[in-house]
Amino acid sequence: MTEGPGEFALIAELAALFGTPPDGLGIGDDAATWPAATGTMAVATTDMLVEGIHFRLDWTNPVDLGWKALAANLSDLAAMGAMPGRALVSIAIDPARRELVLDVARGLQSLAALTGTWIVGGDTVRSPGPLVINVALFGQANPSRLLRRDAARAGDLVGITGVLGASAAALALLSEGAGPMDPAAAPLLAAHHRPHPRLAAGQVLASHGVRCAIDISDGLASEALHVARASGVGIEIDVGRVPLAPAAVELLGDRRSRELALTGGEDYELLFTFDPGLRVELATALDADGGLTVLGEVTDRVPPGDARFVEDGQPIEPAERGYVAF
Amino acid sequence: MTEGPGEFALIAELAALFGTPPDGLGIGDDAATWPAATGTMAVATTDMLVEGIHFRLDWTNPVDLGWKALAANLSDLAAMGAMPGRALVSIAIDPARRELVLDVARGLQSLAALTGTWIVGGDTVRSPGPLVINVALFGQANPSRLLRRDAARAGDLVGITGVLGASAAALALLSEGAGPMDPAAAPLLAAHHRPHPRLAAGQVLASHGVRCAIDISDGLASEALHVARASGVGIEIDVGRVPLAPAAVELLGDRRSRELALTGGEDYELLFTFDPGLRVELATALDADGGLTVLGEVTDRVPPGDARFVEDGQPIEPAERGYVAF
Repeated sequence: MTEGPGEFALIAELAALFGTPPDGLGIGDDAATWPAATGTMAVATTDMLVEGIHFRLDWTNPVDLGWKALAANLSDLAAMGAMPGRALVSIAIDPARRELVLDVARGLQSLAALTGTWIVGGDTVRSPGPLVINVALFGQANPSRLLRRDAARAGDLVGITGVLGASAAALALLSEGAGPMDPAAAPLLAAHHRPHPRLAAGQVLASHGVRCAIDISDGLASEALHVARASGVGIEIDVGRVPLAPAAVELLGDRRSRELALTGGEDYELLFTFDPGLRVELATALDADGGLTVLGEVTDRVPPGDARFVEDGQPIEPAERGYVAF
Repeated sequence: MTEGPGEFALIAELAALFGTPPDGLGIGDDAATWPAATGTMAVATTDMLVEGIHFRLDWTNPVDLGWKALAANLSDLAAMGAMPGRALVSIAIDPARRELVLDVARGLQSLAALTGTWIVGGDTVRSPGPLVINVALFGQANPSRLLRRDAARAGDLVGITGVLGASAAALALLSEGAGPMDPAAAPLLAAHHRPHPRLAAGQVLASHGVRCAIDISDGLASEALHVARASGVGIEIDVGRVPLAPAAVELLGDRRSRELALTGGEDYELLFTFDPGLRVELATALDADGGLTVLGEVTDRVPPGDARFVEDGQPIEPAERGYVAF
């Protein structure tokens, strides 16, 4: 389930109602799992995007929209250490705009072809309302190497791939901009419109002994809290070590870029915790897909189930706890 | 893909764009398939329901809505000879109506529990528009017993389970009715609000050597045409043999009931073709889940790729070719 902190109660109620199957993961991680072919585990996830809430067609063209709809799901698989896969795509659209469907499909197929994903079915229905896209994605993982939200352990370091806030910075520029976009914004717009899910990084983490990861779809603050709650540990993150998108710093300044990095959505980087003994080998192995930045640790200085930001050793509170679905 | 005849061109374009994986079925049947555990095949399908198009909350309560959303997908698995499974459920809803989510979930869970389905994940998002529910469902089948749309053969008989038009009759009564509903409508309302997908019948067909089936979600006329096109055969159906819902005949008359049976949606019965030598054993084996009615045959009296209705040996044209998605 995509969720912000406001969703915890609903998710918990739904998880209790639906139950957890005895042979795999149910609601509560980036994806569900169940036994598949010998030595593998089926992994499945879904994301729904609604026009006016998750995208605007005056800011995102339909080809990019298709790409992003699949990217969000691929990122969930990456965060499980899984690979795609097959996808089912549902689209609700006003018949008067029906020609958009093929453009959305082209964007989906571009990223599908890049990542070894087959789009094998779906549903196209009419709607009087906003354009809605749902992608359900299936992949597989090695059951003994699954990356889970609930596997952070005391003493672990907290790492991320890539830089944060680029997509949110692009969104900020798009929502402010009347005039033409500054050419320096190009990398931010690319991160926003054509995010590359960290599938290779997820494989690196899984194969090097990391067991706890989540993707940063709803902001660092929110995702760190998810890991802390699921694992029953305290997480401390040093905001001074959060890697910012250089173009965001250039165009929006250091302070705003930092805030967007902590609370902005759609970064699709991986947040993970790992034994300090893995640090050197992980840094090398992740070099090909996002690199490694260590920005915090799992510590009893923070109460179990909470995640806190510190700056120069002092606690700070980000403006908000990330994206809230409702 | 749910589709009416108006969708053929779009579906074909999408199928060409996305391609067909070498190791399973892609777009074009009731569900997609791929290799799973030894001796089994993964089967997956998805359906999206939009408020105002596929349901109205003044006619369908949210618990029934959840049931129906899952039933539509289970029916697709039944039509493949597959069993569930795991489901992912996405809901887009106005935050002001958020309390409906748990009722929808209760309806989903009622049918999930009855059918051995685990709801293992999903996405709940806000929307300013109509309520949208998407269910993606995974199950498994015996690869050598898969029921497909494209497997009808010359000389086959055409059979269905159950009776047709009950759900459409309920919808007609709901859309006309100002006053209280006639108690005689109860079985029609039950068929409309709580359809029981023919999972057991699908298993019977698969295990008795039937190879071609489809579920009747969009009307007999439309589904027969799908089978004819996919199989490259001509299908002739004798409308006098189409089994009608008795309560529909009582309340709406013979002629209207017949029209609803031919073109109305949401019956969720199975339409299948089979070797005449199987007729007696199928009739016995299907007794526990819908029974068998033989209503036509695969014949060269009808051009390949077409499906025709005859009455007393004369061709007739139903008022429309079933539900059209756009």
